[in-house]
Amino acid sequence: MIPDNKPKLLNRLSRIEGQVRGITRMVDEDRYCIDVLTQIQAVRAALAKVESEMLKAHLGHCIEGAIVSGDKDEQRRKASELIELLERAR
Amino acid sequence: MIPDNKPKLLNRLSRIEGQVRGITRMVDEDRYCIDVLTQIQAVRAALAKVESEMLKAHLGHCIEGAIVSGDKDEQRRKASELIELLERAR
Amino acid sequence: MIPDNKPKLLNRLSRIEGQVRGITRMVDEDRYCIDVLTQIQAVRAALAKVESEMLKAHLGHCIEGAIVSGDKDEQRRKASELIELLERAR
Amino acid sequence: MIPDNKPKLLNRLSRIEGQVRGITRMVDEDRYCIDVLTQIQAVRAALAKVESEMLKAHLGHCIEGAIVSGDKDEQRRKASELIELLERAR
Repeated sequence: MIPDNKPKLLNRLSRIEGQVRGITRMVDEDRYCIDVLTQIQAVRAALAKVESEMLKAHLGHCIEGAIVSGDKDEQRRKASELIELLERAR
Repeated sequence: MIPDNKPKLLNRLSRIEGQVRGITRMVDEDRYCIDVLTQIQAVRAALAKVESEMLKAHLGHCIEGAIVSGDKDEQRRKASELIELLERAR
Repeated sequence: MIPDNKPKLLNRLSRIEGQVRGITRMVDEDRYCIDVLTQIQAVRAALAKVESEMLKAHLGHCIEGAIVSGDKDEQRRKASELIELLERAR
Repeated sequence: MIPDNKPKLLNRLSRIEGQVRGITRMVDEDRYCIDVLTQIQAVRAALAKVESEMLKAHLGHCIEGAIVSGDKDEQRRKASELIELLERAR
């Protein structure tokens, strides 16, 4: 499934990878814990944005595909997956 | 939409109402902040369980209804609602 | 420990109690699941604000008290409590 | 501030970096959205464990240092930082 915003997502993810590497360096250099914790929170917020984009892509592609197909079993699977994801997210 | 587990849900909710009343009393009696905060966390966990039950009811009734109906626009509405809920939940 | 903002807190809490009662009524009247879930999210947000006020009260009273007292064991207890709360909050 | 568990933390972080790279690859290969979202949730859980370790390190080192020093202003700063972190974490 190709989200329309694939380049944007890849860009975000490579920045997150850099942020994680930055945190590793901060720990290695014994930087102040609160600064490290603040950076970890920034990465979690950045991941939340990626999740958000993925959810929209999922809705526009996979779920729309299941609706258009009219395949009721596939629609049930898609609905269950979303509910499970919601459960785990909390 | 009537969840199969309506009595259970009503029971949980009336217990939560009692817990909130308990927290009000704790604040009124100037109880120790950390104890109040611990109780607030308990209420939030109890609300998460109610959410979980509601989501399962929603899946079993409303979404299943939209799937069985074959009404694609209704299915799209249901899917968008779930994604929005997921967005807000985080 | 009496927070300076006790009346405000009591007011917020009694509104939350009313909101929970409203949710009970919604479930009892078989209202649409997504509307119930949206109300639950509103209560959780309102509880987060109460937590926020309690934390500020805790900082201003209990923790400040421990600092002024100079009692190191008491300070250690207070610090551990906060960390534990942070752990559970996530 | 050097946490006692620095090697463990660095190890965890380099694994998280690998996980993020894995997610980038999944997006690049157009893997199924739900699988990507599940991986993102795994990274967030792994980051939560790092946070947990950092908080314990912070308690054991920085906060303990402020307590032992008896410097009340420093203790106030440390307490405020923790509360702010708690606020942002929710």
